[in-house]
Amino acid sequence: MESAIDTHLKCARTLSRRVPDEYETPFPMFVAGADESLSQVVMAYLGVQYADSPERPAALTALRQIDSSFEVPDGPVSHDMTDHVDNQDHHNLVVVGYWADPAACRRWLHSDAVNGWWSSDERLNEGLGYFREIVAPRVDQYETLYAFTEDFPGVGGLMGKTSGEISEHRYWGSMRDRIPLSQTDWMEPSNHIVVVSGDPGAGGRVVVRGHDNIALIRSGQDWRTTGDEERSLYLVEILPSLEAGMDFLRDNGETLGCYSNRFVRSIDIDGNPLDESYNIGHWRSLAQLERWAESHPTHLRIFVTFFNVVEGLEKLRLYHEVSVSDAIPP
Amino acid sequence: MESAIDTHLKCARTLSRRVPDEYETPFPMFVAGADESLSQVVMAYLGVQYADSPERPAALTALRQIDSSFEVPDGPVSHDMTDHVDNQDHHNLVVVGYWADPAACRRWLHSDAVNGWWSSDERLNEGLGYFREIVAPRVDQYETLYAFTEDFPGVGGLMGKTSGEISEHRYWGSMRDRIPLSQTDWMEPSNHIVVVSGDPGAGGRVVVRGHDNIALIRSGQDWRTTGDEERSLYLVEILPSLEAGMDFLRDNGETLGCYSNRFVRSIDIDGNPLDESYNIGHWRSLAQLERWAESHPTHLRIFVTFFNVVEGLEKLRLYHEVSVSDAIPP
Repeated sequence: MESAIDTHLKCARTLSRRVPDEYETPFPMFVAGADESLSQVVMAYLGVQYADSPERPAALTALRQIDSSFEVPDGPVSHDMTDHVDNQDHHNLVVVGYWADPAACRRWLHSDAVNGWWSSDERLNEGLGYFREIVAPRVDQYETLYAFTEDFPGVGGLMGKTSGEISEHRYWGSMRDRIPLSQTDWMEPSNHIVVVSGDPGAGGRVVVRGHDNIALIRSGQDWRTTGDEERSLYLVEILPSLEAGMDFLRDNGETLGCYSNRFVRSIDIDGNPLDESYNIGHWRSLAQLERWAESHPTHLRIFVTFFNVVEGLEKLRLYHEVSVSDAIPP
Repeated sequence: MESAIDTHLKCARTLSRRVPDEYETPFPMFVAGADESLSQVVMAYLGVQYADSPERPAALTALRQIDSSFEVPDGPVSHDMTDHVDNQDHHNLVVVGYWADPAACRRWLHSDAVNGWWSSDERLNEGLGYFREIVAPRVDQYETLYAFTEDFPGVGGLMGKTSGEISEHRYWGSMRDRIPLSQTDWMEPSNHIVVVSGDPGAGGRVVVRGHDNIALIRSGQDWRTTGDEERSLYLVEILPSLEAGMDFLRDNGETLGCYSNRFVRSIDIDGNPLDESYNIGHWRSLAQLERWAESHPTHLRIFVTFFNVVEGLEKLRLYHEVSVSDAIPP
């Protein structure tokens, strides 16, 4: 059993783990690891929004445009695409790109090709909505958790290594304990979200600045290679409670500290659904995410179901990644 | 908002709380407090066991004998009596005495009247079983938690004071954080339970020695003064999930670290049931109690139900007290 905190990210603690060094877990879970050269990553959620089916072809064209812009030098190491309908009945296509080098992402964003397309007046007059949500956690600001050991999605895909069986899981607080910064820092939120420019009510371009230690969780499900039994386990046993919890947060999360919650379906470049999905949740603080996860009936149902099945999983891939990050991305 | 750890029990931490100093709770809960003169308490569970109804009168006579022995000098400050049927269908009458002074308890136990009765050969030949379970936590080794502020039962009744609204509740780990010793000590179990003398298989007198940091939880319900609505809330909404959880632990607790779990009904001196009950659970470690409480479906149901109703409680009194203690009582 090893610590989820990689050796080179260990430091003298001023805050203790919730459990002692001798803590043992009843079943194995794993995290992604990286070389010391990796210091900070970028996750850029780039979205296209449309009102109804007639606009879908145009939205898919925009999605493909963003996808092809990743071929520009300094594009992301990896990316994936998703589709979801939000609680205002807007359709959303999102491509999320992952960079292992914030400077490269900065160069990519400011390249003529990319910046030119995003800042063009055409974007304001197509009958589509666009958004970019970019966070850049340092390696001491995020954690991952997998019930499997290869081909990690999301930020884990940048990292290149797989841990052995880790100690910090199967107790509330283990998410925090897996984040290296928790050794010395409570990761509390500073200030509030601020509209830096533009007017959300009026439409057009709006820039929103986050605050320090917004927590972002991506929790995923991949049933692409499951057999009939596991597919049914996921679709019949797990999915209904998962949907109930995610819908609850989407519609009622605000009072709990959840800024936004989107349960999205992975798609291919043509917009066809894949047997893969994930939730993207933004929270005012890691602590508020913890409180919801550990006490809300909708999440406790998900949690109980997960632990009932996790030891028997073969092809069904369940995972999550959680980060906090500084207000100003690179 | 104040800390559950009283000022004179605070010390320089080597282990941190699970939540930062700024943590705020959504509703008030309270703990018992005591003068600095209180350094250690004793809880003595003194039991009479019988096989079936015909033996009940004799068992009640024995219970009354124990009760009257409390009048001997150095008897307990307070006590209460309970009745339960265990999972081997034995009937159990238990009187629990609370002392604020271990030396007084020791003198009481060794007094001719008390020691003479317990060590008499008559006890071996009455067709009844007897047991004594005695723990003596120091004040830094236990915590209490109440949704009310007066007439505390159990160990809280020894203490004399009521806190203001405390900070350490409504998160997993708060039980540990309320125990003063958690500031510097993981409270891990040492060794194992040992039969010191006698042979449990053969019957007769058996002495069992515990180990350091056995955790004892008493969690109670008192619906004596409730109106119809709250009584129904307790009996219909709360009790079924509580019984399911307590029965689960009674019958299956061993693999989880639960040595013994007894959900008992309070009785008067004549054995008549009162509208009051509590659970007595002995655990190999506080950590194992925590893991069960925070992850087992049967307890999560109790937990969710409790938090659904706690803010509206008027006369229904719900509480718990949790201690660890050293292997050898005074």
